[in-house]
Amino acid sequence: MADVAAREFFTTRTVAEALAGFRPGRRTRTETVPLHLALRRVPGQPVTAPHPLPGFPRSTVDGYAVRAADTYGVSEGLPGYLTVTGAVRMGAAPEDAVTEGGAVAMPTGGVIPPGADAVVMIEYTAEVMPGTIEVVRPVAPGEGVVRADEDARPGDEIIGRGRPLRPQDLGMLAAAGVTSVTVHAKPVVTIFSTGDEVVPADTWELKPGQVRDALPASDVIVISAGSSVGARDETASAVGRLGEPGIWCHGLAIKPGKPTLLAECAGVPVIGLPGNPRSALVVFRLIGAPVVRLVGGCTVPPPEPSTRARLSRDLASSTGRLDVVQVKVSDGVAVPVFGLSALLSVLTVADGYIVIPDEATGLDAGSEVNVILYA
Amino acid sequence: MADVAAREFFTTRTVAEALAGFRPGRRTRTETVPLHLALRRVPGQPVTAPHPLPGFPRSTVDGYAVRAADTYGVSEGLPGYLTVTGAVRMGAAPEDAVTEGGAVAMPTGGVIPPGADAVVMIEYTAEVMPGTIEVVRPVAPGEGVVRADEDARPGDEIIGRGRPLRPQDLGMLAAAGVTSVTVHAKPVVTIFSTGDEVVPADTWELKPGQVRDALPASDVIVISAGSSVGARDETASAVGRLGEPGIWCHGLAIKPGKPTLLAECAGVPVIGLPGNPRSALVVFRLIGAPVVRLVGGCTVPPPEPSTRARLSRDLASSTGRLDVVQVKVSDGVAVPVFGLSALLSVLTVADGYIVIPDEATGLDAGSEVNVILYA
Repeated sequence: MADVAAREFFTTRTVAEALAGFRPGRRTRTETVPLHLALRRVPGQPVTAPHPLPGFPRSTVDGYAVRAADTYGVSEGLPGYLTVTGAVRMGAAPEDAVTEGGAVAMPTGGVIPPGADAVVMIEYTAEVMPGTIEVVRPVAPGEGVVRADEDARPGDEIIGRGRPLRPQDLGMLAAAGVTSVTVHAKPVVTIFSTGDEVVPADTWELKPGQVRDALPASDVIVISAGSSVGARDETASAVGRLGEPGIWCHGLAIKPGKPTLLAECAGVPVIGLPGNPRSALVVFRLIGAPVVRLVGGCTVPPPEPSTRARLSRDLASSTGRLDVVQVKVSDGVAVPVFGLSALLSVLTVADGYIVIPDEATGLDAGSEVNVILYA
Repeated sequence: MADVAAREFFTTRTVAEALAGFRPGRRTRTETVPLHLALRRVPGQPVTAPHPLPGFPRSTVDGYAVRAADTYGVSEGLPGYLTVTGAVRMGAAPEDAVTEGGAVAMPTGGVIPPGADAVVMIEYTAEVMPGTIEVVRPVAPGEGVVRADEDARPGDEIIGRGRPLRPQDLGMLAAAGVTSVTVHAKPVVTIFSTGDEVVPADTWELKPGQVRDALPASDVIVISAGSSVGARDETASAVGRLGEPGIWCHGLAIKPGKPTLLAECAGVPVIGLPGNPRSALVVFRLIGAPVVRLVGGCTVPPPEPSTRARLSRDLASSTGRLDVVQVKVSDGVAVPVFGLSALLSVLTVADGYIVIPDEATGLDAGSEVNVILYA
């Protein structure tokens, strides 16, 4: 029972090695979803503009569409005078062209009439008599105007692949008349919670062989606990039975989280998490979530909330191992939250965590740290 | 038509004034939801631990439960010898007490047997003959043990009110045997997209008076566009018809986003957003989202993704006005993305934005800025 050799990990890797090297090739299929269901979904291919955008030249201000040349040289002291020949209504085609010496009243966003090449802001005009305005400032061609293809030309890539769609991306797609988008299917992640002590009401107890049954339907398999050292390491033996290419690493140079297992079985990535809640959370965030994102086609992961803070006290660390320390943050100071890995309260009290890299021997009190915040 | 006085805003406020002063009292009712639906929901009241947690003293290591006093003075050169009287199984009550000179084999997480006050790690023991171990390192009382109430004592507040529930909070509640939680109802936000040019397939066109009809069912009303200067400011007139306490501000000292309207009608906050997409996004993020959160009981908003970066070029700004500038970030450099407010592509190209405060006259190239990232 106390045979130390038997308790050694199979293949220990650093976190950097795992992030760079454990890159399962599996990708979810793509599917087409309507735009209103596409928020945060990951495009499987770029989307190009089918038409020019906005599609017509439009005014950026309230004012008058004019020929810019008709305003050259005007000033407060020497206004120009133009004849108002009509008005453009929002959402309607212009009824009148602008001819030499003429002007058409424009709302912001309205279609620039033929013949006009600029819009004078209403602030620089005054209606001196019905049908005639004076203009006190000249405009250059293009001023006050969005060109018909200024937002996008036909064929321009308006959305790239691999980056989750944000609200403004959906806005752009809608404006371009794209009403559905091809995205990666959400990865199916199967989670096994092992452990004799876990009661059935909360979790699904792993029985030997169940990992095999779950394989075909899963994109990623997560096994919680059972990946420790010693005689009771059920995850390693279950995964081992699944055969090649098998276990990529068993043991990760991270604290907490050393008893981590990474494997690929029949093309399905398997992540064996340590049993302690804190270790499981840390390893899933650092290693598991990137794998799930990758399988789901996400190559530009969304940014994580973080903040800079000053460390309240010295923190020791061992070289060759990544240390993850839970912290509370207030007034720009990060205070480490200590406590056993088994305690849930450390995680609920913490606002986030800091990472002490492999090569560091620790951090001094007062040093500036980057805190990854729990959202 | 060119009457400048008529185009002045009613009451202009700064963003800081709006954040501090526009604090509608409306809160959504609370409701009780099962734990598996409670992620990101906002607790309406604190939750206290009904029992001690973990509820029994448990081992933090694989090893042997012992009486610490029996290990005093032992060393590699002078091991102590203990008689193994049993083994604890995971999830089961201990069958044997630990008596003087005795030891019980323990898995990590197992229940500490009566009589034991510490656990020796298996690494510091060896089974020298069946039923007898040698111990080469002493343990102090409490070592290798989580106390029965170390995670929480009965009555301890384990979850506070007002902060959206994170995964680890649900873990804590589950461990405490709390299977449902009282949370604020999600705010009902009614959005009116006004504008003659907006086609019905994408949006719902506002008809005069519809704001009134929507009031009773809404916790927050958002009106897009129609809040500009000039004769066509329909939002202000519609809101004005709703009566007291009426309009809190019309005009915000922010660029983009000046034509913002904030009002409270019959206890329902009304946010009138400018019509340009960029202005609408900026104002909703800075002013609208905090109001929606507040109404939904969220007093500790979730952290936003952000990053520090160096500004690639000088940026001008006017004092007395908050400037929000869209930026692209790469390799720690924030490059402003310019373009008309009407362009959607500025928003889809941007990774986030920087805020130049009211009092600043601009930012110099090379200065460090905080970029709020779009997630």
